[in-house]
Amino acid sequence: MISMNHGSGGVLTGKLINDVFFKHFDNEILLKAEDSAVLDCNSKQFAMTTDSFVIDPIFFKGGDIGKLAVCGTVNDLTCVGALPKYLNCGFIIGEGFSIETLEKIVISMAKTAKEANVKIVAGDTKVVENHGLFINTSGYGEIISPLSISNSKIGDKIIVTGFLGEHQAAIMSARMGISNNISSDVAPLHSLSSCLDGIHSMRDITRGGLVTVLNEICEKSHCGAKIYEDSLPISQETKGFCDILGLEPIYMANEGKMLIIGDVNIDKICQLPYCKNAAIIGEITAPSQLLLQTHIGGTRILDPLYSEALPRIC
Amino acid sequence: MISMNHGSGGVLTGKLINDVFFKHFDNEILLKAEDSAVLDCNSKQFAMTTDSFVIDPIFFKGGDIGKLAVCGTVNDLTCVGALPKYLNCGFIIGEGFSIETLEKIVISMAKTAKEANVKIVAGDTKVVENHGLFINTSGYGEIISPLSISNSKIGDKIIVTGFLGEHQAAIMSARMGISNNISSDVAPLHSLSSCLDGIHSMRDITRGGLVTVLNEICEKSHCGAKIYEDSLPISQETKGFCDILGLEPIYMANEGKMLIIGDVNIDKICQLPYCKNAAIIGEITAPSQLLLQTHIGGTRILDPLYSEALPRIC
Repeated sequence: MISMNHGSGGVLTGKLINDVFFKHFDNEILLKAEDSAVLDCNSKQFAMTTDSFVIDPIFFKGGDIGKLAVCGTVNDLTCVGALPKYLNCGFIIGEGFSIETLEKIVISMAKTAKEANVKIVAGDTKVVENHGLFINTSGYGEIISPLSISNSKIGDKIIVTGFLGEHQAAIMSARMGISNNISSDVAPLHSLSSCLDGIHSMRDITRGGLVTVLNEICEKSHCGAKIYEDSLPISQETKGFCDILGLEPIYMANEGKMLIIGDVNIDKICQLPYCKNAAIIGEITAPSQLLLQTHIGGTRILDPLYSEALPRIC
Repeated sequence: MISMNHGSGGVLTGKLINDVFFKHFDNEILLKAEDSAVLDCNSKQFAMTTDSFVIDPIFFKGGDIGKLAVCGTVNDLTCVGALPKYLNCGFIIGEGFSIETLEKIVISMAKTAKEANVKIVAGDTKVVENHGLFINTSGYGEIISPLSISNSKIGDKIIVTGFLGEHQAAIMSARMGISNNISSDVAPLHSLSSCLDGIHSMRDITRGGLVTVLNEICEKSHCGAKIYEDSLPISQETKGFCDILGLEPIYMANEGKMLIIGDVNIDKICQLPYCKNAAIIGEITAPSQLLLQTHIGGTRILDPLYSEALPRIC
């Protein structure tokens, strides 16, 4: 039976994907399990991806479901080294949903699409009985320099493009009615596609957080990784929030942060929009488990997220 | 406030699309309102489209939500003169949904994708609290001969590729617990892309039925149309079902029938899979309302569907 944990982006999601989807939709493009499929068109390569957004609440500090839907797909295209070009949107709307609210979300999508320099070229609308709103966005981008989660090499630097955990901390704050200054970091990261030199692998840090995403890259690239607790960029506010609740930002979702693996000029990354707090947090090693060197000098094994951290976070 | 009528595919859906989506996602590709967006890649053209499927029940005589999701997107690509190539799938699954049932649907999708010669290359899985299953499919195809709903010309023949109303009649029968032999006609119509000679416009007959789809083509092509009641292909079973309930097959959804406008060899169409009952049903005329010449020789104006014929039919 499907549980909320199957939607966590963690181990159970991976099991469902392997046991049901990959088993029957068996083809080598899909089985690469990249954030976007990379395909050929007239001897040039392009990328396609899809994502559904079921976040609750649909408005939150820093964004809304519409901004999230555009950024999520733009970032998934960016991950494989593509310049995002076109988006499709599918709306599933609950009967009784306010048309004014829908328009607000559509305006937010249009604004974000403009910032990300993508055109929304096709759409679909369905209405269902239960209240609420789900948005699917699928996208097309042109490959500039093909990246893959299988391409990381021993000795590569591990970089995150800014503060960890902010999206999840903002959504949790909204759900729990906690008043603080933590905003979701949801943002389009397409500008990274102008700066792909030396990058081997890239993945946006969403469900499952840094640890889950980095474990996936290590598995696909047949390598290990070591990261340093003291190097992790975490804002004071998020740290305080997590300390009180016993949460770990390295397992929490962002929606505007990229994990970058390669031989990269960090100063150049820091100059890109939404990347000013980018930091080198570790390096790729020979095959082993993912290790964290802690503040006090110890070493901890970081397993991927197993169960649901927070349902309906994107 | 959103009502079920906004999802009917009729006048209210059109109003929502114009007033909210087209208003803000304003670009010339989207505003063409074709079944798929037609785009450029290296001086060749390709097509992109998206569709969400929320049908209830998810299994029905002749198919299931998975088969429907693949066929819907394959047919939308075929409509613009494209050969369907790649699909993405987004699953939104209710907590508590059976994994065995999910796998059945995935197997049905894989089988239909194989028949339609498309690869499922990217996917996404989300879990939400309410039971049920929604599937979004988006697709990519390569344009063979560009068709447009704006291209119909006075004198063109109007063709439908088989019996009208079968999908809707099957879903209504399932919902009402009526036992009969009516099966949904859900089918992939990609083979039409090998037979585009002389075709000016093509659209699959889904929500809103033949009348709504033909009205849309007439509006976009700045012309009128006349169809003949005696020429309409309707099976005896569907006719009987509709007579009892006071329904009209010309307003009812199919999921495996195409409306074709142009100067076309009907015998060639009839030889294609799922098209053996294709028929010429009328012709494109100078601008006027859509007219039906009835069996007894009278003339009736056919307005597009206004309100919801049947919620969650696709």
